[in-house]
Amino acid sequence: MASPSTPASTPIPASIPTPVPTPGPGPVPATSATSVSVSRTVDAIVIGLGPGGEDIAARLVRGGWSVLAVDEHLVGGECPYYGCIPSKMMLHESRRAGASWARVAQRIREEATDHWDDRVAVERLLGTGAKFVHGRAEIVGGPAAGAASDGTEVTVTPNDGSAHQTWMARRAVVLNTGSETVRVPVPGLSEAVTWTHRDVVTAETLPASLAIVGGGPVGCELGQALARFGVRVSLLVRGGRLLSGEAPEAAELVVERFRAEGIDVRTGTEISGVQAGDVSRYETSHGIPASAGPVDLELTTGDRLTADRVLLATGRAPRDPVEVDEWCRVLDGAAAEGGRPVPGRYAIGDMTGAGPFTHTSMAQAAVVADQLLTGAARRPFLRHAVPRVTYTDPEVAAVGLSEDEARKAVEQQGGDASEVHVARVDLGASSRGWIDEVRGHLTLVARVDGMTAGKADGQGNRSRKNGTSGGVLVGAAVVGPHAGEILGALTVAVHARTPVAELARIPWAYPTLHRSIGDAVTQFGSDVIGAESAAGPVS
Amino acid sequence: MASPSTPASTPIPASIPTPVPTPGPGPVPATSATSVSVSRTVDAIVIGLGPGGEDIAARLVRGGWSVLAVDEHLVGGECPYYGCIPSKMMLHESRRAGASWARVAQRIREEATDHWDDRVAVERLLGTGAKFVHGRAEIVGGPAAGAASDGTEVTVTPNDGSAHQTWMARRAVVLNTGSETVRVPVPGLSEAVTWTHRDVVTAETLPASLAIVGGGPVGCELGQALARFGVRVSLLVRGGRLLSGEAPEAAELVVERFRAEGIDVRTGTEISGVQAGDVSRYETSHGIPASAGPVDLELTTGDRLTADRVLLATGRAPRDPVEVDEWCRVLDGAAAEGGRPVPGRYAIGDMTGAGPFTHTSMAQAAVVADQLLTGAARRPFLRHAVPRVTYTDPEVAAVGLSEDEARKAVEQQGGDASEVHVARVDLGASSRGWIDEVRGHLTLVARVDGMTAGKADGQGNRSRKNGTSGGVLVGAAVVGPHAGEILGALTVAVHARTPVAELARIPWAYPTLHRSIGDAVTQFGSDVIGAESAAGPVS
Repeated sequence: MASPSTPASTPIPASIPTPVPTPGPGPVPATSATSVSVSRTVDAIVIGLGPGGEDIAARLVRGGWSVLAVDEHLVGGECPYYGCIPSKMMLHESRRAGASWARVAQRIREEATDHWDDRVAVERLLGTGAKFVHGRAEIVGGPAAGAASDGTEVTVTPNDGSAHQTWMARRAVVLNTGSETVRVPVPGLSEAVTWTHRDVVTAETLPASLAIVGGGPVGCELGQALARFGVRVSLLVRGGRLLSGEAPEAAELVVERFRAEGIDVRTGTEISGVQAGDVSRYETSHGIPASAGPVDLELTTGDRLTADRVLLATGRAPRDPVEVDEWCRVLDGAAAEGGRPVPGRYAIGDMTGAGPFTHTSMAQAAVVADQLLTGAARRPFLRHAVPRVTYTDPEVAAVGLSEDEARKAVEQQGGDASEVHVARVDLGASSRGWIDEVRGHLTLVARVDGMTAGKADGQGNRSRKNGTSGGVLVGAAVVGPHAGEILGALTVAVHARTPVAELARIPWAYPTLHRSIGDAVTQFGSDVIGAESAAGPVS
Repeated sequence: MASPSTPASTPIPASIPTPVPTPGPGPVPATSATSVSVSRTVDAIVIGLGPGGEDIAARLVRGGWSVLAVDEHLVGGECPYYGCIPSKMMLHESRRAGASWARVAQRIREEATDHWDDRVAVERLLGTGAKFVHGRAEIVGGPAAGAASDGTEVTVTPNDGSAHQTWMARRAVVLNTGSETVRVPVPGLSEAVTWTHRDVVTAETLPASLAIVGGGPVGCELGQALARFGVRVSLLVRGGRLLSGEAPEAAELVVERFRAEGIDVRTGTEISGVQAGDVSRYETSHGIPASAGPVDLELTTGDRLTADRVLLATGRAPRDPVEVDEWCRVLDGAAAEGGRPVPGRYAIGDMTGAGPFTHTSMAQAAVVADQLLTGAARRPFLRHAVPRVTYTDPEVAAVGLSEDEARKAVEQQGGDASEVHVARVDLGASSRGWIDEVRGHLTLVARVDGMTAGKADGQGNRSRKNGTSGGVLVGAAVVGPHAGEILGALTVAVHARTPVAELARIPWAYPTLHRSIGDAVTQFGSDVIGAESAAGPVS
């Protein structure tokens, strides 16, 4: 029987009240934001209410804990207001016939973000029974301070100008302060023409032309979406290629598609200088303030470029980087230098460096909640199978290690790089790929010595599974249509360390694109595919 | 290292020469179809060259065996010429802006099927080193005849009218004779207006209207495709709903979509009578022979319907049904009545009843080839995780058992039906589903008693995996966009019996649709999710 007693583990657009019941250990009266002085001691304080923070606050309250949640900014975090959700809404609209910026901008404003108002999200949070302060929180004392038995003291400064509050977290402080845009200064570039992704998300009208600085996932997703809405997009990439964190063949397919769609992709390029443009070229129909753009940009290649706006998509960095162990416990020093867990202090999300993704933060929240509520951490957060997807067309998806990373990992563990095997198939040569005229690739990275590979899971679990020989997948990558969905099968396989021998037996549905996993597996030799030990009849 | 030494395990369109090298135990000279009299004794005879047959012939030759392959019809089978490939080509074209029947009909004729000529496929087969006769093959003697050591005698009657040939298979005969359309007679319906899927696939022009008899996958896929090309489609379903083999909620979404696209879906209906229509309504632009349609159909509901053609999509049945064990060995009687394997005789594909899918046949071919070449069957063909996809819009995909099937299976094994747990999520309530305005569902069926569930694998392997408690997935279903690709993750989980505890830890990429698997898992109670035994730090 289904027991729908826990909320969906997925952020929902900020303005949508959660449809999921939130039963707890009994009815907990909602506490208004102004009634926080009832008690200044709680079991846990959660600082930063991005997806993982909101989730762990709710989990702890359901587990019977008293919780104070503090966020200076919007409850819900970057993802629903400025990140994943609005950017994917733009991409969705951009793929429709008759794509309309006005329509998606309105939907973002009214349906997804409630005009960037977190009222509904705050009510959702209070409805769980957590206390909440819109404000800044600071832990009193250094990382080593405050043993768990004593609790951790936190100073909270409300946004509304009321007095500082001193709170005590009896059992845990969970940090989730997220990341912020890295602003690479461009000399001479006026603020008036400089955009971040937040300006794109909140724009009611679009500039006629946009120069994007940065060829990572954010620059690529927004660049493709905006180009499809008619913006003349130039993508300026400092390095040799787009999506430098992904496989070169993925970047190649993306850049070909971008160019076919009219995007001006320039690699090995930075802005070296800026000149004010001709203000008379200002076009009200595109909503550009009279004091701004277009600007003439000088590039390090010697080329020039004119654009109404310059979007900085130069990456994000943690506001308060911390080092954590696999149980998400904050360390008092670098792990490599023997850093030890600070009692009662945990961190999740972008600040941990485990992958700046909503799904990382959510998974870490579950790990911390489980160990806090059960008294023992039965589930560490494993970093060996964190997936990532760039939702461009084609999609670019990967999980685990690349070939190079796998070889380095093996060598660092004293193994032989020949333990790493790679199989790659052309999705276009599969039946479905041929039918749908697909361009794409699927790559598997396997490691043969399962005993050594087992080391990486941090559980001391080095035994082979299922009585098989052969290898396990340690990484996989897909570029092509629906790559993000195809990645699901590979995420299970890498995370669960499913033996390649098992993958080789699966009758993958024909003619799907993910059936190419089976085609790729057949490229491995018998040392990778291995053999199962189950005895069968001698024929 | 990749070792691309085996061909892709996926059928390719018949007219496309395989791009994969086919190394064997040394160069084997191609044998022309007319030189079969060189030797009348081979190691194996493969009868029926649908995907699995062609694959196993190639595998055995690569393993050093001499092989005779026989097919009365087209080498490659139904799938590339009349089945999966052309139907998915139609669906692909039908989704494009400016969809054109002429374009896809030409592509099917010229690129996919080479005008339904298997010359290239025969060359591909001969290129592996197999011998080949276009003709009928018959095993001499009953199922119990011919011990493996003696070999099996097969009579081959060539299509070209030349004399019968007597062949001896020293080690194995592999049967793969497939299935054929079940023709439900419609009294009074003339042959001239009666179509099967083959008539659709080969049609250069389309009728203006089409009544489809049958609401299974073939009727649904062809019906939606043809409606999008402008054919007025009526879908006559005998039972209460479309896709009776799938979950009711899947059928509901499909029928809603069909009706929104103008398809006239009528359930609980059969044709009770036929009247010749007015021949003067004949329209040459749709290629209807002057002697045919439209016809007036009388339905059992009392309604009448006029259509230019009637497409019989009333299912397929094995030409020569056999019962096989999990090693694909043909039994000399029903398994339930103690049937025993006939020495040296194997069967794969539709005739085995394991699922009328190309991927079933291919997986069985691998099982048989492995046991023949290695002398022991290390890999049985497991039926617990055979996936299936109907490629309509929305797609309908499933693997393993439904809730009802799981409960019945448990009860048959003497277990308690309460061991079966179900979780279901609305894809539209997930982040990606909300963003993309998706309608769909994802359903998981778990079984808690892993010890008993282990029985089903036929390997006597009843041990729990990974030191976990809790359940495993025994089935899953998805309806919605990209359901076939989302099914990949669920296919791995059901096939590999990945513990639900493991699935619960996976940081599914946000915001994909397959992340809903994680949302569904959280609905299970702790008895299903279980706990992992790995010890963690006490907090």
